[in-house]
Amino acid sequence: MAIVLGPNRYGKAETRLVRVIRDGDTHSLLDFNVSVALAGDLAATHATGDNSTVLPTDTMKNTVYAFAKEHGVGEPESFALLLGRHFVVSQPQVESATISIEAYGWDRLGPHSFAKRGDYTRTAVVTVTADAAQVVSGIGGLVLLNTTDSEFHGFVRDRYTTLPPATDRILATAVDAKWRHLAADGDWAQSYEMAVVALKTAFAETYSYSLQQTLMAMGTRVLTERPEIAEVRLALPNKHHYLVDLSPFDLTNDNEVFIAGDRPYGLIEGTVTRDDVPAAIAEWWL
Amino acid sequence: MAIVLGPNRYGKAETRLVRVIRDGDTHSLLDFNVSVALAGDLAATHATGDNSTVLPTDTMKNTVYAFAKEHGVGEPESFALLLGRHFVVSQPQVESATISIEAYGWDRLGPHSFAKRGDYTRTAVVTVTADAAQVVSGIGGLVLLNTTDSEFHGFVRDRYTTLPPATDRILATAVDAKWRHLAADGDWAQSYEMAVVALKTAFAETYSYSLQQTLMAMGTRVLTERPEIAEVRLALPNKHHYLVDLSPFDLTNDNEVFIAGDRPYGLIEGTVTRDDVPAAIAEWWL
Amino acid sequence: MAIVLGPNRYGKAETRLVRVIRDGDTHSLLDFNVSVALAGDLAATHATGDNSTVLPTDTMKNTVYAFAKEHGVGEPESFALLLGRHFVVSQPQVESATISIEAYGWDRLGPHSFAKRGDYTRTAVVTVTADAAQVVSGIGGLVLLNTTDSEFHGFVRDRYTTLPPATDRILATAVDAKWRHLAADGDWAQSYEMAVVALKTAFAETYSYSLQQTLMAMGTRVLTERPEIAEVRLALPNKHHYLVDLSPFDLTNDNEVFIAGDRPYGLIEGTVTRDDVPAAIAEWWL
Amino acid sequence: MAIVLGPNRYGKAETRLVRVIRDGDTHSLLDFNVSVALAGDLAATHATGDNSTVLPTDTMKNTVYAFAKEHGVGEPESFALLLGRHFVVSQPQVESATISIEAYGWDRLGPHSFAKRGDYTRTAVVTVTADAAQVVSGIGGLVLLNTTDSEFHGFVRDRYTTLPPATDRILATAVDAKWRHLAADGDWAQSYEMAVVALKTAFAETYSYSLQQTLMAMGTRVLTERPEIAEVRLALPNKHHYLVDLSPFDLTNDNEVFIAGDRPYGLIEGTVTRDDVPAAIAEWWL
Repeated sequence: MAIVLGPNRYGKAETRLVRVIRDGDTHSLLDFNVSVALAGDLAATHATGDNSTVLPTDTMKNTVYAFAKEHGVGEPESFALLLGRHFVVSQPQVESATISIEAYGWDRLGPHSFAKRGDYTRTAVVTVTADAAQVVSGIGGLVLLNTTDSEFHGFVRDRYTTLPPATDRILATAVDAKWRHLAADGDWAQSYEMAVVALKTAFAETYSYSLQQTLMAMGTRVLTERPEIAEVRLALPNKHHYLVDLSPFDLTNDNEVFIAGDRPYGLIEGTVTRDDVPAAIAEWWL
Repeated sequence: MAIVLGPNRYGKAETRLVRVIRDGDTHSLLDFNVSVALAGDLAATHATGDNSTVLPTDTMKNTVYAFAKEHGVGEPESFALLLGRHFVVSQPQVESATISIEAYGWDRLGPHSFAKRGDYTRTAVVTVTADAAQVVSGIGGLVLLNTTDSEFHGFVRDRYTTLPPATDRILATAVDAKWRHLAADGDWAQSYEMAVVALKTAFAETYSYSLQQTLMAMGTRVLTERPEIAEVRLALPNKHHYLVDLSPFDLTNDNEVFIAGDRPYGLIEGTVTRDDVPAAIAEWWL
Repeated sequence: MAIVLGPNRYGKAETRLVRVIRDGDTHSLLDFNVSVALAGDLAATHATGDNSTVLPTDTMKNTVYAFAKEHGVGEPESFALLLGRHFVVSQPQVESATISIEAYGWDRLGPHSFAKRGDYTRTAVVTVTADAAQVVSGIGGLVLLNTTDSEFHGFVRDRYTTLPPATDRILATAVDAKWRHLAADGDWAQSYEMAVVALKTAFAETYSYSLQQTLMAMGTRVLTERPEIAEVRLALPNKHHYLVDLSPFDLTNDNEVFIAGDRPYGLIEGTVTRDDVPAAIAEWWL
Repeated sequence: MAIVLGPNRYGKAETRLVRVIRDGDTHSLLDFNVSVALAGDLAATHATGDNSTVLPTDTMKNTVYAFAKEHGVGEPESFALLLGRHFVVSQPQVESATISIEAYGWDRLGPHSFAKRGDYTRTAVVTVTADAAQVVSGIGGLVLLNTTDSEFHGFVRDRYTTLPPATDRILATAVDAKWRHLAADGDWAQSYEMAVVALKTAFAETYSYSLQQTLMAMGTRVLTERPEIAEVRLALPNKHHYLVDLSPFDLTNDNEVFIAGDRPYGLIEGTVTRDDVPAAIAEWWL
């Protein structure tokens, strides 16, 4: 029996990049949080601190900023591909580069004035190897709520079940979704915008008997409308809204007054996929 | 010398209320976080735990939910006034009630479907006594950024000053503002909407030589446009964006690539007021 | 009627300072978060962006780091006094300097190795003017819990009261306390350590009929044991622990199984003071 | 091509359980955050909202509280095994149950008084299937710092590298570690305590040339000292402490004054494993 090094990687996390594009008097703004992780031949630094195959994480940070000037930034997916390919091509000891980007949206207030949106974050996670690239897009923090058209009943009952069946409840969730693309190029902006519309629309239009059913509808809608997407993973917390018992005050509560609960919450996680797509080249949920 | 009880109050903080208004098939949504604090004759409970003048904080929570049904909710200011007056009128030992509300915005997706906004929070802090009421409205978390039209120079230099003068910089802040109304009634919705427009517009339109100047312009704009408002308090963190030095990579950085810094940050706090307004009846920044 | 500038100040917030003291092979560590706020003659920068009386906040940050080398650091109170006096003395336009420090504790693991404590934060808020100085010490985030010796009954009941009286409940809180010193010098380390002991001991030893009673006991204990302290302010959230109803499962719950609630929470705020102390020279709770 | 359901699970997250054990006048306290996730035959609820194989997440919550009374709680690992086995045995449609627990530590202040520790969180993630059980223990948020005995040089340099070699630097990290046990029984309390000691000791005693080397030393120490553990995974953020340049103030900085940086940070992730252990039965990092 020996003690050995298993899977490992390293990188620079959360490099905060703001890029201004000056088109005359009208400026645009990109606001990214970029994380880089590299894997490859790293045994020596683990064993003895021999760093001869270690590109410093400080250099990764510098590369993000320099590339933002040299190559521009563009969509998160394309900027991530650019960075990932750079590290794999320029550093032979690097077998795999994973670039993760969170992009924050801003609304225009004027030619060079902006107000930050806070409704959700756009994400991209790109993995590049010597001969392949995998692109995953996503969204985080999109909070959706239906005030009706949600039921929950017919469930299993055991000794510990006290939940009454519900025929009209609030259904609310904070969408954390990622979707894997079939190819490493595309119109990333349009694909993202339309995937988000599909998620929102499916949530709003599904008469729901379980959050699982809504999850399946959301993933299916994305795949139906976006042929460039191979599969979708969703983590949907069930943000419970509890009906307040107003009977002690001689008041009825016709699904009007709710407590927004913090914890605990249900958590529904699922994948919706095409049955004929090639396997992922790297774990893509993390 | 004796040890005595000084200023004190108690209440229930962060009662999370979601109120659905069902107008046929079209629903509306109010999403509030309500905090209640009462002051008055509370010496006995402090001295001996004699609770004969203590309305339980659990009752305050119940009152919030019951009032949401009995009286509806409406604007945060009016719901806070309703609650505050109730406690002062119904509990003779209560000399002062302070009701603080955070209201979260939602965008409509369909007749009964909504997506949460995350750009900023609307606030109301109302203080009610036996013979007066003070209404303070506000906004929290509004992040604004100008990519240009900001300079900073001509400042004091001492032994520890290394900052170079700036003739073109990013100016960014997260607006935390509160404004005190002259009266305890009004069109709260319109007043709030227009005050927010005034804040955003003044930020965007001010060619700035200091964040203090921008603060003064923002407060002045609110008071100029809204005669119902007595004074405005602003806390503006200077969210520094540092120009990246790209010269080691033989690249120039023409105000295009920035680091969004976390800490430290400048913090500019100031009040803009009319010179002829009556004094506040209660501290209103807390 | 004119629109005028009211109270205002500015500064650098959250300068993160780590100071290593190397005493041969044995090192010590100070870990501070320092915020500076200056008030004085700042009308010009608000009016026109004329910064001729504005010491840059960047300079304040530099001063924190330089002073940490030049003068050492020591206790938070003494470092804050040093900084505050520097700004008031060296900058004649500065009428008042407020220095706020959060200090994070570390446990020693070895001669130069440490593990961060996370139980609570020590705070100091010092205000310096031309002829006076006020020192406020404090603690944040100290979470205390008694599993018994807490009751709550005899309270006011109104139409909205449903809370049953409790004769045995969990009492838990997260202590946020500040205390104002009579003088601007002292043995800050000992004073702080013993004040914290007094707070903990009073919480543990008080048989409580209300959290207000516990608050009064905690403040009184500090003042009784520490003659150098003029008054104490406490904000004590009542971190509710709800007894779980296990009767549907034919189980009894003898105060054994609890839900730790998040929101809402009670909030008890109060001041305990000596009746013969001089007034504060500056608001010290903020 | 068809759109199909892929991997999925559901459960109740973050059930907050506080359990008081009353041994006469001396009480003990367990403070857990319990999450349950079940996988199995869930196709119908995804397809149509047919919930006939869905045990409500509300029931999972109830089960946590009822089991805390019926069976006691004990160590997180054993409580998680109890819960996991219950769901797999009692619900034939459940193929796999994953129970995740965060346990918060409290220090004793008196026979029934406690102060919360905040230094780190103990974790357990247990996966149970019909014929196997996997136990993973861990720790989160343990912040460690060496003021010296850390170097970093000899690394790869490319066009974007500006980092100077360091021969004496602060090394700090927030340890997030998990370790998989060989068996599903054991002395969990002792195993955990000694694994934490091993992690701390290895960090403190390793003269480090890279954080990877420290990671390997930490994992190796755990496996060397704890034969019951199969493998260890560590995620170690490199919490950078930047030496302040004091030369503009004619001061030298002999590794005494540092800026504690927030973002970006290095992130080193790695697994240290025995080369002869059976494979995991379920992904255990998530």
